[in-house]
Amino acid sequence: MARDVHAARVKRACRLMGEQGIDALLLAKPANMFYLTGDGRLCSFVMVSREGEVAMGVPTTDVEDVRRLARFDHIVGFENEIMMIHAISHFFGQFGIKSGRVGLEYTFLTQAMKGMLTHPHAKPEGVAEVDGTRIMSSLRMVKEEGEVARIRASARVAAEGMRAGVAAVRAGATESMVAAEAERAMRRAGAEGFWRSYVSSGPRTNLAHGVATTRRLRRGELVMIDIHPVVDGYSADICRTVCVGPPSDAQRTAHALYLRAQRAAVEKARAGVTMDELEEALQGVIGEGGHADHVFGPPVHGVGIEFEEAPLPSGHAFFHGEEEAPPLAANTVIAVGNCGLYTGPWGVRVEDTVLIGPRGPTVLTRFPRALGPGR
Amino acid sequence: MARDVHAARVKRACRLMGEQGIDALLLAKPANMFYLTGDGRLCSFVMVSREGEVAMGVPTTDVEDVRRLARFDHIVGFENEIMMIHAISHFFGQFGIKSGRVGLEYTFLTQAMKGMLTHPHAKPEGVAEVDGTRIMSSLRMVKEEGEVARIRASARVAAEGMRAGVAAVRAGATESMVAAEAERAMRRAGAEGFWRSYVSSGPRTNLAHGVATTRRLRRGELVMIDIHPVVDGYSADICRTVCVGPPSDAQRTAHALYLRAQRAAVEKARAGVTMDELEEALQGVIGEGGHADHVFGPPVHGVGIEFEEAPLPSGHAFFHGEEEAPPLAANTVIAVGNCGLYTGPWGVRVEDTVLIGPRGPTVLTRFPRALGPGR
Repeated sequence: MARDVHAARVKRACRLMGEQGIDALLLAKPANMFYLTGDGRLCSFVMVSREGEVAMGVPTTDVEDVRRLARFDHIVGFENEIMMIHAISHFFGQFGIKSGRVGLEYTFLTQAMKGMLTHPHAKPEGVAEVDGTRIMSSLRMVKEEGEVARIRASARVAAEGMRAGVAAVRAGATESMVAAEAERAMRRAGAEGFWRSYVSSGPRTNLAHGVATTRRLRRGELVMIDIHPVVDGYSADICRTVCVGPPSDAQRTAHALYLRAQRAAVEKARAGVTMDELEEALQGVIGEGGHADHVFGPPVHGVGIEFEEAPLPSGHAFFHGEEEAPPLAANTVIAVGNCGLYTGPWGVRVEDTVLIGPRGPTVLTRFPRALGPGR
Repeated sequence: MARDVHAARVKRACRLMGEQGIDALLLAKPANMFYLTGDGRLCSFVMVSREGEVAMGVPTTDVEDVRRLARFDHIVGFENEIMMIHAISHFFGQFGIKSGRVGLEYTFLTQAMKGMLTHPHAKPEGVAEVDGTRIMSSLRMVKEEGEVARIRASARVAAEGMRAGVAAVRAGATESMVAAEAERAMRRAGAEGFWRSYVSSGPRTNLAHGVATTRRLRRGELVMIDIHPVVDGYSADICRTVCVGPPSDAQRTAHALYLRAQRAAVEKARAGVTMDELEEALQGVIGEGGHADHVFGPPVHGVGIEFEEAPLPSGHAFFHGEEEAPPLAANTVIAVGNCGLYTGPWGVRVEDTVLIGPRGPTVLTRFPRALGPGR
């Protein structure tokens, strides 16, 4: 993306900083650094002054690479943690910040990392620390056209991955081998990487987070595949449930109910709707189908640089340090179908990445949803 | 592993809790929960009383699965964050803990997660929070025979992954496609998963963390491949640098120097050595070779449930919330070669997982180290 895109984002960040009385942002989360500068990597930091000056600190080994990728005003390379702390102190000095408030990423920093960023040799004593999470989340929530294009590309790669994953489903294969084919297909289709893949089978389809194991698939079992490629820095999120051989009537019925629930939520996904309304739409249909007690987890969440990001439904948002999102604006991208229908012996789930349009939704992850053979 | 293994680990944890005046551990890091109970998963917690009672809280969807996998005294399923907070409060009550100190994982918890675990409705007001990181790290540092066997299995899978990754190195392939083949081979060889793969090429081999991109390899360039499978819950760590076609003299010389440095450190890896001595051994040889300014990052770290865990060299440990490790005992497992030799235009690095034996080291990740063709 052009550098003026990042300049404009920094400008928007500064406006929010002003409104919230924050004098500097001190970021270490790669997704946030990438959004504001064009580059985000481990063991690095970005400091933004309220006037819009951007300073970066990265390992000395990485300075030239970051110069090529990122937009910033100042950069310093460091050799170790002590020099990193001094680099932070240096930029506080250069920006003339001796008091006021610095915004940190409370939903990202561990105690140990926070200890480094706010070390007495890094942060001036007079500068108070506050949570800057919501500034970054609200900036990233509505996508620019360039971002939507990247998420579309990621969604196409997600469909390729799902095609390979579903094709690998057969009795005797392990969950991990199904994940292997989906992941390889995503990389070959253009992904630079992916977030953790979930592949679960049989009784494990009832789990909230079915990370792949070496369990072998058996005939008649369900298999849940949930993958999240990263293409050009942007993610997509797709989940399908398929059966090893012909599904049972109970499996068919539950799956059909879930599809109706997902469709009800997707149809409501247009500008002005709230995340809670989408949650209610999906859960409402499942409840009417007699499975109100069989849902777990927030059924909708934002998708962008991270495969799971703001906006979140209000309850979930609160406990994860995010705020309740305003009614969704056009060009917000969300995943619909993040919670499963968990019957006990097995579960079903279908998830798609959806673009909120001014007049209606567009499903970006195009791949058949059928449970049984013939898919 | 048999359940008495976990009972014995809890007993050792209780002894350390007693020594440090900690009345309960409240864990949320999957690696630590897995170590003490046999199961560790997202959105869950484990509470351990000083008397050795173990309570778990997991999503209701997961209760039966956890019953099958974990050793514990009490379990509760929760539907959402509010019920999770109440479950924590419930166990504080059941254990009769109204005052004293609870140990949390400061190197793992974000501010938001810590806020949930210590919510006024979760933690009794009279209970102070302290960092329990070092208790768990010191427990996990020396491996039991069963753990060593799993790390050996993981190291064999790592070698299979490296074989496939190196075989995929050719002009025109992307870094991501090299990662794809390594990852797929690890899953097919028995890995249930892997930690993030690093594949970098050309100028990107000079980066501290060369995460794969869609950059295409060119003839004469170096390619650095760093992979970390997980087998039966345990990791291994291997890195190799290879050339696309014949390497230049400068590349050969730097690589040979790095191999000498790595060998010097591996040869010292026996019971009684310190992590700092190993660091000095590796960096010393590189320094004598004229590249003292071209190293970055700690060259050694522990390997186990996580591919990078305690012990760490003292400087790095301090900033990451860990303590300086005592001289290494037999059956500690470490990775040697975690820092690269970064010349500017390119870097080289070779890393292996090494078992500290009573009389000497055993390199577990057996794969040729050659830079050029004919490997």
